[in-house]
Parts: sequence; structure tokens; C-alpha cells
Amino acid sequence: MKDVHAMSPVNNRLRLREVGVSGVRKPINIQRPGRAETLNAEFSVRVDLPPERKGSDLSRNAELLAELVDATATRPVQGLEAACREVARELLIRHTYATEAYVEARAQYFLPRGIRPERSSFEDYILLAEARATRGPAGEEPRVVWKIGAEAVGMTACPCAMETCRALLEKEFPLLKDPSLATLPIVSHNQRNRTTLSFELAEAAEIEADRILAAIEAAQSSPTYAILKRGDEATVVLTAHRNPKFVEDVIRDVLAQVPRLFPTVPDEAMIHARTRSEESIHKYDVTASHSVSLGDLRRGASPE
Amino acid sequence: MKDVHAMSPVNNRLRLREVGVSGVRKPINIQRPGRAETLNAEFSVRVDLPPERKGSDLSRNAELLAELVDATATRPVQGLEAACREVARELLIRHTYATEAYVEARAQYFLPRGIRPERSSFEDYILLAEARATRGPAGEEPRVVWKIGAEAVGMTACPCAMETCRALLEKEFPLLKDPSLATLPIVSHNQRNRTTLSFELAEAAEIEADRILAAIEAAQSSPTYAILKRGDEATVVLTAHRNPKFVEDVIRDVLAQVPRLFPTVPDEAMIHARTRSEESIHKYDVTASHSVSLGDLRRGASPE
Amino acid sequence: MKDVHAMSPVNNRLRLREVGVSGVRKPINIQRPGRAETLNAEFSVRVDLPPERKGSDLSRNAELLAELVDATATRPVQGLEAACREVARELLIRHTYATEAYVEARAQYFLPRGIRPERSSFEDYILLAEARATRGPAGEEPRVVWKIGAEAVGMTACPCAMETCRALLEKEFPLLKDPSLATLPIVSHNQRNRTTLSFELAEAAEIEADRILAAIEAAQSSPTYAILKRGDEATVVLTAHRNPKFVEDVIRDVLAQVPRLFPTVPDEAMIHARTRSEESIHKYDVTASHSVSLGDLRRGASPE
Amino acid sequence: MKDVHAMSPVNNRLRLREVGVSGVRKPINIQRPGRAETLNAEFSVRVDLPPERKGSDLSRNAELLAELVDATATRPVQGLEAACREVARELLIRHTYATEAYVEARAQYFLPRGIRPERSSFEDYILLAEARATRGPAGEEPRVVWKIGAEAVGMTACPCAMETCRALLEKEFPLLKDPSLATLPIVSHNQRNRTTLSFELAEAAEIEADRILAAIEAAQSSPTYAILKRGDEATVVLTAHRNPKFVEDVIRDVLAQVPRLFPTVPDEAMIHARTRSEESIHKYDVTASHSVSLGDLRRGASPE
Repeated sequence: MKDVHAMSPVNNRLRLREVGVSGVRKPINIQRPGRAETLNAEFSVRVDLPPERKGSDLSRNAELLAELVDATATRPVQGLEAACREVARELLIRHTYATEAYVEARAQYFLPRGIRPERSSFEDYILLAEARATRGPAGEEPRVVWKIGAEAVGMTACPCAMETCRALLEKEFPLLKDPSLATLPIVSHNQRNRTTLSFELAEAAEIEADRILAAIEAAQSSPTYAILKRGDEATVVLTAHRNPKFVEDVIRDVLAQVPRLFPTVPDEAMIHARTRSEESIHKYDVTASHSVSLGDLRRGASPE
Repeated sequence: MKDVHAMSPVNNRLRLREVGVSGVRKPINIQRPGRAETLNAEFSVRVDLPPERKGSDLSRNAELLAELVDATATRPVQGLEAACREVARELLIRHTYATEAYVEARAQYFLPRGIRPERSSFEDYILLAEARATRGPAGEEPRVVWKIGAEAVGMTACPCAMETCRALLEKEFPLLKDPSLATLPIVSHNQRNRTTLSFELAEAAEIEADRILAAIEAAQSSPTYAILKRGDEATVVLTAHRNPKFVEDVIRDVLAQVPRLFPTVPDEAMIHARTRSEESIHKYDVTASHSVSLGDLRRGASPE
Repeated sequence: MKDVHAMSPVNNRLRLREVGVSGVRKPINIQRPGRAETLNAEFSVRVDLPPERKGSDLSRNAELLAELVDATATRPVQGLEAACREVARELLIRHTYATEAYVEARAQYFLPRGIRPERSSFEDYILLAEARATRGPAGEEPRVVWKIGAEAVGMTACPCAMETCRALLEKEFPLLKDPSLATLPIVSHNQRNRTTLSFELAEAAEIEADRILAAIEAAQSSPTYAILKRGDEATVVLTAHRNPKFVEDVIRDVLAQVPRLFPTVPDEAMIHARTRSEESIHKYDVTASHSVSLGDLRRGASPE
Repeated sequence: MKDVHAMSPVNNRLRLREVGVSGVRKPINIQRPGRAETLNAEFSVRVDLPPERKGSDLSRNAELLAELVDATATRPVQGLEAACREVARELLIRHTYATEAYVEARAQYFLPRGIRPERSSFEDYILLAEARATRGPAGEEPRVVWKIGAEAVGMTACPCAMETCRALLEKEFPLLKDPSLATLPIVSHNQRNRTTLSFELAEAAEIEADRILAAIEAAQSSPTYAILKRGDEATVVLTAHRNPKFVEDVIRDVLAQVPRLFPTVPDEAMIHARTRSEESIHKYDVTASHSVSLGDLRRGASPE
């Protein structure tokens, strides 16, 4: 049979940056401390294509994902990012004509959480991982830049509306100015906030997804929980209003924790944070994002 | 050419309830008081199929939508629901073998709104319409049951968390029990709420979409706005907290307004309401829905 | 603390049909022949609300899901539908004022499949389950109507375009009319088809999800596979073109298999089928659906 | 009232790259040759934030969008990209502390199309536009890099499966090797393809969205149409199978047309193309993308 993919393209000759498959859904088994866990992941994989080839051999991508990911059913992998790195390296081996291979994965993730131990149940999060392998000189290992991240939904209460509400309410309720009420939590708008923190690096490093999620939840006005009995709802609401946050604060506060929580991650790691508050007082969302090296974060410098 | 659709199916003979096309996107021109407006609508249309026919002639559906909807560019239709009724009737004419035709449409809709006139800008809503035409005896007009509805995003503040917050805060801030602070708005969780109200009826009736939207926004804790300067945010927040609503309250309150706002709609109309609050303290949503005849609503009876 | 939910609503008194939570994501462990499997499921649960109560106690829903679903981590449940039935019954116990409880669940599901054994890998499907429990007279068990279903993506090739292409091609290539080419597969449009088959019944019955998926895949022009090497692609394409299907055919053919594949399911079961072809020659989809009792299917009658 | 946004952040001092609003839906009036057209657009706008400021004044974003976009109701703008450029410049004026402003917009777009004039109806497409304004030295205009793009859904037929089908069919139907059948279109898998082409540049240039869409549709195996009567379906299917395309071919072929179709656009323009085929034989998609300067495309060089 003619190998149509290996034929030369007719019209023009361009190295194409990325050719691949997207939306490949797979169960993947991850080794967590003490137990293996099955994630439902979705993968995209791509390689570049030299100008002299008409097509990329896409069936290799699906085959390789099946071999490496399906195998985790019996040999769990250490994490979604480890799987991405392994797939990226193997892509370069099987697509001999490619100089770069890119893998990204996304999976739902559950952790038992509760506002108190007896209210514990599974809360849902998202794990994110990527790997980009670049072919080096013959005989050398490819360079692999990889990413691990996670996303948590929590709650933000607006510090600005709180101040303007206080000003209006003090006019209507003069007693509110009594010093004993100085720390009374005042009404504001509050809403779902979705924040992602990720690490991008070229070196090996241990980065625990649960710690990423802890950093995010500590940066929101409050985490949210599936089970809240009546008294608990008040606790979450009061926590959030004692801890009001702009999206800008969420970004600064999640980044501020990284040096302390991830002491062994090298300075060269790039830290990416983005957040979205689904504003209760608007029909649109409010967003913020930032990227900074861990070294710059450690030096406390404002990286302009 | 063989007409494959008109052939008899081989395997088994079933009247199929619905065969059609879905996701047909079209601009449609609607005549509003004083001006024509272009909506971006998405249509689904379906007819039943008798057991002796292999296939429904689907190209007629697209043709008919093109003829009737594209024509509104020069002759605006009175409303999305009028377009649905016309398409449903015409479907029965063109699919001679069908006994029932069903059309549904959905469109983004904009109204100029503002918390005060100088803050006015376009807020976005959704319009919904349906029509089901049933073929009657030969020579008679088909019976058409139709629906018009609309959806608005607003804000709800929780009345329950407000009470439990008050109880906790009164312990911490005893001055809060001072009678002069009895009506002080107390913190609660608040969030985006998405509510739909629709009318289903067999008779002709004038039902104004803007009035449906007004009923919904009056039933939420507060409408929301694109432009809110600092003082305005406080106004929205205070309005919502002075008007706390469960999803159950939103449903009861939107239905309660219907008899007064739609005096000319007949008793036989079925009123459908559904609402979803995207809870700020949970990762999941809270929902409620109800359906009741306008007659029952008018009699104030609790229709069990 | 005041129990705001138990208070009487102010504005009007309506029994609300459904109040609940939606989008609760949970891992659930299902006992499959030979092994337990973790599904990522999404649940919605709702109960009705009598006119004398302001609110439904929604925290009970999340608590109950946590208790019953999280418990499957150590004691796997028999299926998603068994979990729904159990949750529905328990909702009526905990919401003492409710007369009806409704649960629906949806989960991604993986099965190892391959066009030949050595190409096997996980293909992704969707499982669907519902249960509606209605409170009976005091001292009696509630009546539970439940549903189990599944969805598979496969491929359809259009029988009509194939005939019209043959007609055009025979004019251009007269040799095509040679009797030896009578069964040559002729070009047509083919596309992704998404088909759902579900069973709704009030009695106990064993209904295997994998058999539902097998029925769907047999009714499409061809199943689809993650791994297809070059020769395999041709096999799938030829299978599909030798087996061209309208959406109408997919519905008739999936229903036609039910009596044979599910001999022990009672006549009273309602069978629901729906299908959507994401047409390659249009920007919109083509859909069909039907519902019929298994008894009617067994009698081969055309249920009008 | 305290201006909370202008306060200094407490925890750490970082210039944040992007803070803004997302999902602002607006009608926008575009001046097309001969008539004004209303698009339903969705905007995101963002600016950076210096380390000494706690918050970005987000209400200015909504205000500005309202002023500039709502005004097109009476004074239509030249295009979505012109609106983005104007909004980006104005953002820098109103956020005096920002050094960079970013706007992106997306809108549904309709063009009358038909496989022949009498089958003409509206087909739906997507328009994309962006602008990034960077503040220059005091007294100078900001530098604005902008983007215009469009997306069209069409059809691809796979050239590889066609060859392997031919090989298999020739064994089964030896007559197929007759020279008179050498150009007979052979079955393959075909599917929806979604392709985007966009131009990014810093200079003024006339780039017509309809021409972008024409380039995309010419690069797919065939455009698709809402109305296809029986003979027309065959025409589309045959066109696609006489013009089989990998995603790689779609990218190369859409880029190949740019020098000829856009002779006045400067060499410095970066051209971005991406495509996704929703494979009929797989449950996942196949994708390709490339970016190249128009100068490199004109020189026909293979830009590695």
C-alpha cells in the first residue's frame, strides 16, 4: 500500500508547527501516598512535521497513549505530569521526523474535605499537566519542559463593595460607628472563584498537586464545601467576609505562598497563576493572571 | 434517481416520534415597538415519520427555515414565537406524511438597562420559543400549541445563612441586638441566579418578552448590571441583602406576579418557571422548578 | 437558631414540583464482573416541597450523596442505576415532607475495544441513570421508577447520498454499471453519530450497560476506534459504506435488537432511543428519537 | 469613600500582567459594503496593574465598552478589529497606571451562500479580533498590535483511507483497475472540519473577513451548505472526495492562498492557521496549526 503520509506535499513546503490528536479520553492510574487512584483524563498530543512530509502518522499517537496510559491500570504512574513527560519522550522516538513533541492532559480530581471532620466528603478539582520534548543532538536525551497545575473553585467576597456598603450603612445606622462594631463583617457581593496555579520547569522536581490546591484555597476568601449544615454556612460566609479579596489579591496571595510551600523547587521554575470570579453583581466575569519565575518570587522583587 | 427516503424500511416498522435537524443558526429580524431588531437564533425542527417511510425529507426543513426566517430580513416577524408557529404550520404542509411538527428556537437578546439612566448599557438575556403543530381532520387548520419564554441572570442572597450569621454575630457583637440595628443588612452568601419563565398555550395571546424579563428580575434578590460605579455596587448589594431569596422564593415570586402582569392571557395557559443559583459557598448549583396553569395561579389555589 | 427553611412562605402558597441540587460531582465505585471500577459521576437530586414550607433542606441532599456514594469506595455498588434508586428512597426518608424524590446521574465510562485484539485500547462512553421515588401510603415502600441508559459515539454513512452519487458516477463512468461492480461501495457523506438507548421501568430487572452499548454500536454504520492502523481505517470505512444508515435507521435498528438482547426485561419497560448525526455536509446536526414499550416492540406492532 | 482599588496591596508587590473583565456580551453594528450589520459579540478586556496599586478600576472597562460599542448602534464601526483597536487605545487613556491594554472579541457572523444561487441561505461563521496597545513615551501614540481572523466549518475527506480503500477494493473488484475508472472517487472517511485563519500586524491594513472565509473554504475538501437537495448532496460529496485533505493539507493550502488574496498586507504580518477535523472514524479530533510571517510565505521559503 502507498504510504500517503510519507509522500511529499504538492502545493507548498512548510514545516508545520503542530499536528496531532485532541480529546483522547482515558482512565489513568496514579500512585498516591498509600493508594492508587483512577483519574478520567483527556489528552492532546502533537508533533511538528518537516516540509518534505505530507502527513504525520497520527495512529502512532493513539497507539502510544494506549500503550503508556492503559498500562497504568497495572503499573500506576506517579502523576499526570510524569505520564505527560513519558508520552512526550516516546513521541519523539516514534515520530522520527519530528523535532518537538507536545502533550497536555486534564483530569477531574477528588479530595476528601470538610469544614469539620464529620462533614467530610469528596470535593472536585481539576489537575493539569503538560510536557514539551525538544530533540537534541543525535545520541542525547531530548530536553523536556513540563508543567503541573491544579484548579480549585472557592469563594471571593469583594473588599471594595464592603467599604462602600459600610459607608452607606453608617449613614443609615449611626450606631454602626461604635468602636465595638469596628470589626463587624459588612455585606458585600461574593461569588464563585476559579483559580489555577501551575509550575513550568525543565528540571526534575517534586511538586505535590494537593499542596498546589492548598495554596489556591488559602488565597481565596474561603474554600467551599459540599456539606454545610446551618451553622457551617455562617462560618464559611463569615470567613469569606473577614477575608475579602479582589481577583488581584487572589493572584498575589497564591503566588506569595509558593516560596514557603515549595522550598525544593528550583529558582528557574516559572509560576503561572490565573483566576476568574463569576461576579454575582454582573453577568460577566472578572479575571486576573500573572507569570513570574520562582527566583523572582523568592527575591520578593517586583518583576517588571 | 431513486427516492431513498420514500422507500420502506427493511428491519422493522415503527412510527418514529421525531426526526429533524438541530442547531440551525440564523439571523432573524423581529419587529419591536419602534424598530426592527436582529436576533441570532438557533432553531431545531422535527416531524414524526410514519412506519411505511424509510426517511424524513430533511432538506425541506432547511429550505423552509431559509424561506421563512431569511425573509424576515425584509419583512420582520412579530416575535420568535410567531416565527416558530409559522414554521411549525408550514412543516405539516411540506411533510405531507407527518402528523405532528415541532419547532424550538433560542436567541440572545439585549435590552438597555442601568441602575440609573446615566449608567445605561446593553444587558444580555435569552429568548426561548417553541411551537408544536398537530394535523387535524382534512380541511381543518392544525392545532398549534406554542411557548414563549425568557431567561435572565440576576443575583440571590440566601435568607438562611443571613439568619445564622446574625445569630453568630450577635454573640460576638452584643451591640448588634440594639433595636436601632434590627434592620441592618447582615452578611450572607450571594450568587448568580439564572431564572426562566415561560408561557405555553394553544390560543392566540399577546405576551411581551420584556415583561417576562421584568417579572424575573423583580423575583430575584436584585437584577445585575454591566456598569456599576463604586456607590452603585453598594446599592445592588444592599438591595439584594434586603431582599434575600431561596430558589424556592424566586419561583414563588416570579409566578405570583404573572396574574397581575399578564391580565389578558387565558386561564388555560401553563406557566413554567425554573431557576438555578450558582451557589458561592458550594461547587454545585441549587435548582427549583414549577409548572402551574394560569387559572390556578389566579385562583391562588395551591395546585397539588 | 431560627429554622428559616421550615417557616411558611409569605407571598403565595404553592407546592413546588422540584427543589434540589445539581452538578454534584463524585467518584463512585461500581462492581463489574471480576473487578470494581471507579466512575466520575455527576448527580442531580430533587424533591417536591409542600405549600406550607418556605425551603427544602438542601444540605440533606449533599449529606446523603456523601454517605451513600462516598461509601462505595469500600463497598462498591452494583451500578449507577442502583445508586440512584438507593439515593431516591433515602431522600424520601430524610425529606419527611416530600412526596416525590428524583435523582439523575451521568458518568464517563471506558471499555477496552479494538478493531482486532492487538489494537485494543479504552474507548469512552457515557452511562446515564435516573430514579424517581413516589411516597406510598404510610407503612408501604415508595414506588420507584428507574432508568438506565448509555451513549456511544459511532459513525453513520448516508444511504441517500450514496444512491445519488452512484447515479452521477454511472453517467461519468459507464463501466460502473458492470454487474461485477454492483456491490462496490460508493462514496457518501459519513460522520460522527451519537446514540443513546435507555430503559425505564418500575420493576427490578438486570440490564447490563455493556449490552446497551453493544446494541447501539451494532445499529450505527460502524463503531469507531482509537487505534486504527492504515489497513484498519479502510476496514471501518468499508464497513460503514456497506451499512449506510439514516438517523431513522439507527433508531429503528437499535430498537429492533432490544427484544432479543434483553429477553428477561418485562414488557412494561419503556425503551427510549435518540440519535444525533453531526453531518459532515452541513453545519447543523440531524436527529431522531422514539419511545416505545418493550411489549410493543416484542409484538412487532407499529405503536402509533 | 475610601478608594480601595487605589490602596497599596499588603502581602506582596507584583506588577500583575493582566486584570480585567471577560464574557461581556454586546450587540455591535458593523458597516459592510452597502449595509450595516448587527453582530452579537463577546468581549474580554484587560490591562496590567502596577505593584503599588491594590486593584484595577474594572468599572471603567464596562463603561468604556458601553460607550464605544453601544455607540455603534447609531455610528457603525468598520469592523470588529477596528472596535478592538479603539477600545484598547481608550483603555490606556482611562487606566492611567497601565502600560498595556488587551482586547479580544468573538462574534457569530452570517453570509448568504448556496451550492447554486437558488439554494442560497445564511451560513454561520465566527469572526475573531484582538488588539494589544502598549503605552509609548509620554506624548506619543501607543503601539497597537491587532489581529483579525475568521473561522469556517467545512468538510474534509481523508486521502489516506481513500488509498487503502482503493487497494482493498481492487482486490475484491478487479474491474476497478480498468483505466477508465482511474479517476473514480473512492470511499473514505469524511467529517466536519473547523478552520481558523488570522492575521496579526502592527500596521494599518485592509483585511476583508469575507476573503478570509473564502480562503478557508477553498482549503477544505468542500464547503458545506444548509440547503442541499438530493442532487446537490452528491455534488458536495464528489467535490470532497475529488479533493481529499489531511489537516496538514488544509493548513498548507489555506496559507498558500494568502499571498495572492491579500497582496496589500505587509510582509511583517504574522499569519496564524489552525484546523480541527472531528474525525468520523474516531471519537477524538485531529488538529494542526502553523504560524508564519507573510513575508516568508511570499518568499515561498520553508520557515524553520
